[in-house]
Amino acid sequence: MSDLVDEASGVTSTRAKKVSESDLENFLLQKPGWQLVREDGVLKLRKIYEFENFEQALSFANRIGVLAEEYQHHPDLVIRWGACTVIWWSHELGGLQRNDLLLSAKTDLLFRI
Amino acid sequence: MSDLVDEASGVTSTRAKKVSESDLENFLLQKPGWQLVREDGVLKLRKIYEFENFEQALSFANRIGVLAEEYQHHPDLVIRWGACTVIWWSHELGGLQRNDLLLSAKTDLLFRI
Repeated sequence: MSDLVDEASGVTSTRAKKVSESDLENFLLQKPGWQLVREDGVLKLRKIYEFENFEQALSFANRIGVLAEEYQHHPDLVIRWGACTVIWWSHELGGLQRNDLLLSAKTDLLFRI
Repeated sequence: MSDLVDEASGVTSTRAKKVSESDLENFLLQKPGWQLVREDGVLKLRKIYEFENFEQALSFANRIGVLAEEYQHHPDLVIRWGACTVIWWSHELGGLQRNDLLLSAKTDLLFRI
């Protein structure tokens, strides 16, 4: 999935690209843990990352925060003792853009215990 | 509600105290925005704090993280663009302790835009 992460460096130009069905299938096959969910009729990508305590989960959320500011694209984060759930989707589109796949792949790279 | 916050400084001794119905009623009357919710049969206190962007919501979550480590009692936090939802309850009791009221009151003191 390194191609996705490489592509993210030119994320501005890919921002408006709606995700294709095959891109999404490939992503879900290649990136373990990510789930396609529908909330209020909107498709989103969700993954639960597990940690040893609250502090580690919050630290991970802060690393994602830096990424989100860098790309001006912000996920939902649920922090609890031992876990951080990350949810990416595109508000303006009411669903998934290719950008969401890119940032999901980048989120995986930020994960460390 | 300053009495609650003062009491929080001796939180270790109050940790095991189950919340009384009148304490809970008083809390909800005096502290706007907090809602009593039931998730999976467990009573919890939830409040949504609004911000101008994602960064401010994450910054608030970090202030709550310091509080949570100090008292070794950790809420659920939902961070999204413009809001941070805070949920306090006591895992070990499967419900609300007086401690949860104390830390909810302290969370209000951490709120600033």
